Amino acid sequence: MEAYLDNSATTKVNPQVVQVVSKVMLEDYGNPSSKHMKGVDAEQYVKKAKKVIAGSLKCLEKEIVFTSGGTESNNMAIIGSALANQRKGKHIITSAVEHASVKEPFLYLEKLGFRVTFLPVDHDGIVNVNALREALDDQTILVSVMHVNNEIGAVEPIEEIGHIVKGFNPSIIYHVDAIQSYGKYRIVPKKLNIDLLSVSGHKIHAPKGTGFIYIKDKTKIKPIIYGGGQQSGMRSGTDNVPGIAGLSEAVSLIYNEQFDEKIDGLYRIKEYLVSELSKISGVTINGRTGRDSAPHIVSAGFEGVRAEVLLHALEEKHIYVSSGSACSSNRPGLSSTLVASGIDSKLLDSTIRFSFCYETTMEEIEYTISALRELLPVLRRFTRH
Amino acid sequence: MEAYLDNSATTKVNPQVVQVVSKVMLEDYGNPSSKHMKGVDAEQYVKKAKKVIAGSLKCLEKEIVFTSGGTESNNMAIIGSALANQRKGKHIITSAVEHASVKEPFLYLEKLGFRVTFLPVDHDGIVNVNALREALDDQTILVSVMHVNNEIGAVEPIEEIGHIVKGFNPSIIYHVDAIQSYGKYRIVPKKLNIDLLSVSGHKIHAPKGTGFIYIKDKTKIKPIIYGGGQQSGMRSGTDNVPGIAGLSEAVSLIYNEQFDEKIDGLYRIKEYLVSELSKISGVTINGRTGRDSAPHIVSAGFEGVRAEVLLHALEEKHIYVSSGSACSSNRPGLSSTLVASGIDSKLLDSTIRFSFCYETTMEEIEYTISALRELLPVLRRFTRH
Repeated sequence: MEAYLDNSATTKVNPQVVQVVSKVMLEDYGNPSSKHMKGVDAEQYVKKAKKVIAGSLKCLEKEIVFTSGGTESNNMAIIGSALANQRKGKHIITSAVEHASVKEPFLYLEKLGFRVTFLPVDHDGIVNVNALREALDDQTILVSVMHVNNEIGAVEPIEEIGHIVKGFNPSIIYHVDAIQSYGKYRIVPKKLNIDLLSVSGHKIHAPKGTGFIYIKDKTKIKPIIYGGGQQSGMRSGTDNVPGIAGLSEAVSLIYNEQFDEKIDGLYRIKEYLVSELSKISGVTINGRTGRDSAPHIVSAGFEGVRAEVLLHALEEKHIYVSSGSACSSNRPGLSSTLVASGIDSKLLDSTIRFSFCYETTMEEIEYTISALRELLPVLRRFTRH
Repeated sequence: MEAYLDNSATTKVNPQVVQVVSKVMLEDYGNPSSKHMKGVDAEQYVKKAKKVIAGSLKCLEKEIVFTSGGTESNNMAIIGSALANQRKGKHIITSAVEHASVKEPFLYLEKLGFRVTFLPVDHDGIVNVNALREALDDQTILVSVMHVNNEIGAVEPIEEIGHIVKGFNPSIIYHVDAIQSYGKYRIVPKKLNIDLLSVSGHKIHAPKGTGFIYIKDKTKIKPIIYGGGQQSGMRSGTDNVPGIAGLSEAVSLIYNEQFDEKIDGLYRIKEYLVSELSKISGVTINGRTGRDSAPHIVSAGFEGVRAEVLLHALEEKHIYVSSGSACSSNRPGLSSTLVASGIDSKLLDSTIRFSFCYETTMEEIEYTISALRELLPVLRRFTRH
């Protein structure tokens, strides 16, 4: 048995997506900027992908700009909008629990002279909206908050935040990092007052190296990569046509086929895992676990066991999980989400993230639970730290 | 018969490369940043790719940083090094015939207050090295020159330029855009005094959305994308493992298998096309055509015919070529390379680029020539502009 429970780090590419990607690489390999038929054929994939993705967000096709992934989308959203609007003010706001691809651009801008407010979160990792109200001032030009936290699955109040931000000043740009939420939620940026939205392909069974940014029409933003003027000048560089076609296919598969059933299935998996974990002594679940939390992420602290030791013990049983945030797990340092949420310090280094996809089965969860029941007593006895 | 003669715009992905990419997407889909086996397995592809590519450049593995393509590599090289070294001076130098992905970053830096010198070229599109000597001053921090011009195949004197730059001041950073030359030349950056070198995957039968930048050890350069700190902090974002594995495979196929024979084959194709084109009246070949020019590019002006009309007429015969530079051919405006090279103004709008790959055959060239002989008189009679 194998249980890949690290889908928030990355997902297996859907076989139908792989077929599309391979076909485009072999047959429709033209450069969309070329004027001949091979170029036009390639361009059709890009146009179709814009249509499919715009459909999923109920937005305009021209509001979709393809990037190389979530990190680039976040960088473009934050650096691109801050630099484009700095004459209006140099105050920018984000939360204390953002992914590194949001946090680091903010720190970069701070070095350039921007004033940054990091909003605190509660014990469940939920952003404090009162702190946001207090932070907003006449110099504020950008607010960036993630939709779903990648480490504990907290769902941020992005609708309320949009309301507060635009109520205070409609010209403040509102960016939402939807990298962990797109494909799990129906997101309509216009309804939520969102100006910029970042999405990654490889979190939703599309290839790595793909992603997009939604840029609301007329939003003032600069590119971060310059050149041939592709993507209406917002993202130069030859379009990654096979990747874009694959991303489009993955989006179709998710949103057009029994979407609600798939999400229900994820919640059932989550509820089962949470209930079984709760029965094991010395296990603490981080954050909320109901339908007000993300359907695909469970974070748990295992008292008396180092996360990395548990991770490798599970790995030997072909169970793949993550300790802390996998996207930067090669880097030292404690999880900023767990610290900001005030998790018991002795559990900081004992936290494991389980993350599912639509194909995760109850059997895989049962197998994981029985492995944990077998391993935990042994590890606690011999590797106590 | 079909003749795809637009390989400088983009190439067909090699079927062996497609196999590798597909396998990685389906089987080895882990995130290299993950600590478990799925992550380690994925990381092996990235490590192997660094080894293969470093081998091709005779450089260190840690000097290779993967990017989303040539445009990103050029942006990172130019913007990243200029911003990192601006305290030493704000004078930067490039040529008048660079690709948009070099030219536009220079114009961006100019707006930020950098002083830019654009070096002139001769009638063959070759950079004037005396102008470089005169331009260098104590404020110069960066010189960026392409190896092979994408529009007319001119080979720039990159070795001489490296010599001049480093002779003047070894701390000036020397960047070479090798997007049209890597895979056609054996390039050893260290021998050529090159600090930064940009390469694109999709010009060498690897997938779109892949590329790398060589960064000489200890070169002072800032990233342009921030986040999880992948690629030793130089390029954040989940590594595009399938793309990187495919790029590595493409590089192996080019450099490890009868490289010199392949280049010889390209020159024979080029010599044949040039000699046949020269026999047609009203055809002017742009730039040099011998072994001192790039093996895979021929640019020709067709008197009395608009390039776009000829392009579409050839397209009907399944012959695919480019007018001007394909990478930005959707944008209006005349080719800057042709203008800078002083091409006869009445031919500016009548220029076609033919570009080959290793699989281009003599038969395809014969077919193209006979098509031209058939089409030109008709087009000249009915579409004269």
